[in-house]
Amino acid sequence: MADVVPQQPVCVLGLGLIGGSIMRALAAAGREAFGYNRSVESAQGAIADGFDATTDLTGTLHRAAETGALIVLAVPMPALPNMLAHIAEVAPGCPLTDVTSVKGAVLDAVTAAGLRERFVGGHPMAGTAHSGWAAGHSGLFTGAPWVVSVDDHVDPQVWSMVMTLALNCRAEVVPAKSDEHDAAAAAISHLPHLLAEALAIIAGEIPLAFALAAGSFRDATRVAATAPDLVRAMCEGNSGQLIHTADRAMELLGRARESLATHDSVAELVDAGHAARTRYDNFPRSDIFHVIIGAENWRDELAAAGRAGGVIRSALPVLDSPR
Amino acid sequence: MADVVPQQPVCVLGLGLIGGSIMRALAAAGREAFGYNRSVESAQGAIADGFDATTDLTGTLHRAAETGALIVLAVPMPALPNMLAHIAEVAPGCPLTDVTSVKGAVLDAVTAAGLRERFVGGHPMAGTAHSGWAAGHSGLFTGAPWVVSVDDHVDPQVWSMVMTLALNCRAEVVPAKSDEHDAAAAAISHLPHLLAEALAIIAGEIPLAFALAAGSFRDATRVAATAPDLVRAMCEGNSGQLIHTADRAMELLGRARESLATHDSVAELVDAGHAARTRYDNFPRSDIFHVIIGAENWRDELAAAGRAGGVIRSALPVLDSPR
Repeated sequence: MADVVPQQPVCVLGLGLIGGSIMRALAAAGREAFGYNRSVESAQGAIADGFDATTDLTGTLHRAAETGALIVLAVPMPALPNMLAHIAEVAPGCPLTDVTSVKGAVLDAVTAAGLRERFVGGHPMAGTAHSGWAAGHSGLFTGAPWVVSVDDHVDPQVWSMVMTLALNCRAEVVPAKSDEHDAAAAAISHLPHLLAEALAIIAGEIPLAFALAAGSFRDATRVAATAPDLVRAMCEGNSGQLIHTADRAMELLGRARESLATHDSVAELVDAGHAARTRYDNFPRSDIFHVIIGAENWRDELAAAGRAGGVIRSALPVLDSPR
Repeated sequence: MADVVPQQPVCVLGLGLIGGSIMRALAAAGREAFGYNRSVESAQGAIADGFDATTDLTGTLHRAAETGALIVLAVPMPALPNMLAHIAEVAPGCPLTDVTSVKGAVLDAVTAAGLRERFVGGHPMAGTAHSGWAAGHSGLFTGAPWVVSVDDHVDPQVWSMVMTLALNCRAEVVPAKSDEHDAAAAAISHLPHLLAEALAIIAGEIPLAFALAAGSFRDATRVAATAPDLVRAMCEGNSGQLIHTADRAMELLGRARESLATHDSVAELVDAGHAARTRYDNFPRSDIFHVIIGAENWRDELAAAGRAGGVIRSALPVLDSPR
């Protein structure tokens, strides 16, 4: 079904890897977007590449308020509270989303700023070890999962706008509740970061290790090359869930270590790990097409479909939306 | 300097991924090789592809003894003791190497079989998640590190033969002592396997995780797709070193977990991990060309050069070798 929501301009706050790639992807999709970045370097980079960008935050927010733009928070987590305070002052009526890798902490900050009513969280699950405007490109989100939060409070119209934004960036929309997203992110992203850091440290302590390290070590420690403050921001922003998965990792590792020491066997861990990875390889992906945004139970239906591997690849209709 | 050792035929025992790729690489290098495989399937596969292969072990070993072939043990670790007993009976005088991912346990088995004098351990550090003859290819070792053991007992002539074998397969030879190899392998290969298994299990326990898992999770758990008995063989064969690194991993992870719980910070782990990964990215690789195999202190000099990142890319000369 075609998108039936009128497309407002998009205001991207923060033109790093993610924000900068959104600007480019929207341009490629023929959509109006304008951006702000605090540092002159990335703003100038965007302008030099032909994009509508500035370092004037207040001016940008006034423009967003006047045009009813969808505001995309693409600044690092620590910069969020200040940014939200500005938005609450200048553009409190604008629909709002974010691209942060933790959703519970962002929702808390948005709620504290009094902006929850027009907010729908988002998390495009794409990235590289690089950052900044220059690292971005229009294809960064192509085929990638883009989580759009379906918490109890979310507004159907704003939800549809955020869904459309993600689809314009050629991502696949995964609807999910914020707390379930954070538990999953701890397991598939934040814990892997901690383990990669630990692996790099351990190898660095053994004289011959770097000399012998090849492809599998490079893969296993690739994310340890990510800038430390980005890793800290995502891990520390999700500390509750991350502590839980770290405990589980130590439990599994400790049990394997004991089995190795007493029975010279790692069979239990290896068999279970292989079985889980095989389930992942065979995890079904399906299209969500039967839900009408705003209809009864639409949020729970979307959350259940997302959990089961469903993704939105073309825009769902909105109840009572203008045609 | 050119290779000055006459090239004997190579007898490859086991035609799986590694053995099969050695057969192909040697053929590409114009070197004579013949192979044995216990299962009919891989032997037939090799024959169908035009290689000299059989399922007759005794015949193969007699042929090796008659031609003075360099025997390459390319069978899984659990099959080694039986295989070594056959070799000790039929072809005890042949130079001998292996391709196993643990070196201490293999050296112990070789010593127990009375074959230490003509043995030089080897470990080509290449592989994929696939196995069997069909998975191999002649370029598997191109540019990959191939460890050749320089333990105190090793014979210069046999060492040179194994070095030349690796160079014929277009690998880069890293000289290393067996125990140092095993400590390094625990850190860069065996521990990463255990962590990948744990990650796959943890993600499998969280409803939304597989639905959201993308590139970094796929990378982080890639080796969990390896056949469980291969993972078990390499981990259990190196249990002493692996227990040590697993303890260190739990120590680092536990400390990060406490810091996260009490100070909401993972700075210590993340900063140290990033620094180690950066050191790895800048680890110097250099050519070893100044050592003469068989000269005074040659083993210790090679071990030190390997530790410092040195690799052998063209054959080193052998003292008093025939010209």
